[in-house]
Amino acid sequence: MINIALPKGALLKNSISIFEKVGLDFSDALVLENRMLTIVSKCGRAKALLVRNGDVPVYVSYGQADIGIVGYDVLRESDLTIAKLLDLGFGGCTMSLAVKHDSGYEKPTDLPANCNVASKFVKTARAYFEMLNIPVDIVHLTGSVELGPITGMAEAIVDLVATGKTLKENGLIKIDDLYQSTARLIANPLSLRIDNTLQELILAIESSMNT
Amino acid sequence: MINIALPKGALLKNSISIFEKVGLDFSDALVLENRMLTIVSKCGRAKALLVRNGDVPVYVSYGQADIGIVGYDVLRESDLTIAKLLDLGFGGCTMSLAVKHDSGYEKPTDLPANCNVASKFVKTARAYFEMLNIPVDIVHLTGSVELGPITGMAEAIVDLVATGKTLKENGLIKIDDLYQSTARLIANPLSLRIDNTLQELILAIESSMNT
Repeated sequence: MINIALPKGALLKNSISIFEKVGLDFSDALVLENRMLTIVSKCGRAKALLVRNGDVPVYVSYGQADIGIVGYDVLRESDLTIAKLLDLGFGGCTMSLAVKHDSGYEKPTDLPANCNVASKFVKTARAYFEMLNIPVDIVHLTGSVELGPITGMAEAIVDLVATGKTLKENGLIKIDDLYQSTARLIANPLSLRIDNTLQELILAIESSMNT
Repeated sequence: MINIALPKGALLKNSISIFEKVGLDFSDALVLENRMLTIVSKCGRAKALLVRNGDVPVYVSYGQADIGIVGYDVLRESDLTIAKLLDLGFGGCTMSLAVKHDSGYEKPTDLPANCNVASKFVKTARAYFEMLNIPVDIVHLTGSVELGPITGMAEAIVDLVATGKTLKENGLIKIDDLYQSTARLIANPLSLRIDNTLQELILAIESSMNT
């Protein structure tokens, strides 16, 4: 049986569609999302683990899931050994640098040296400012990052932006994009090498996307 | 104006009661919890930041909140400089070590050397096993930690247990308690030293708890 790590939340619906196209029906997970941890496909050939987006690489890396779907933003923060297979195209958003709209900062180099930048994506944010050679202090928050600039704790935030509505509601504007994020298909490297059924499933997913 | 960091979620209702008893009414936050980031008390003397439990120490440490309420479990994971003031008594739960009920493990030393232990509380789990001198690998998960033993990824979990219902539903049992966790009142050390109004508020909270 193939084990699949599916991300709960915003990416779940489209992730289920991906597997539905290749004959694996996990649609019950959409009804019962909050309570279920695992679900067997209606055909009985595969089992899905319903986990947080951020935990998908863990289950895939440790081999409890052979494949999984996860946002590229999570992959960029992860150090785990996983095979990155396909860009699935959905869940599109941008990792962006944003500041208060009336801050006067128009580009990253306008930020004062050693200012605070709040982010859930600490590695991403740190790598970005190192690349630009701007010394800043990254403040790790786990939610509502936009409160950083609002309260004056941080001059800027590095966060995922989908529609831009949250930024606007909180008086923030983007001044740079770090990268585009979409949902990705990942696999356990060992499973990928030795499991023929898994290889066929991945090929089927790939062809279903091109049709 | 005093700035207060309040934890969204399970601790919010009791946290609001604490401040209500000393004349600061943030009860609107209970109705609109998911949308609001800040709320001014009805008397206008204080402002609450509604943030994740895990982010409360950050806002207090950086001084954007003068005081805050947060679970002891979060404090144990945090390295930030904050003044720990009062045990507020509510939000009681236990940080526990749990295994599959049919695993045969009855105490921590029964766990095989170098086995995996899943936890959201990486520092706590690591310190615990170091104290016992048991070499284990801590696997960091962000949610549904009980999936670790269920999928076979981990032999045990270190997690917060309130009623024990989640453990039972997932076929897990506790084999040790690390510590009791309750909600704590914390303060920014500098605010605490220089702000008389804040000192009076803390004394008022302390006396309201003893009546």
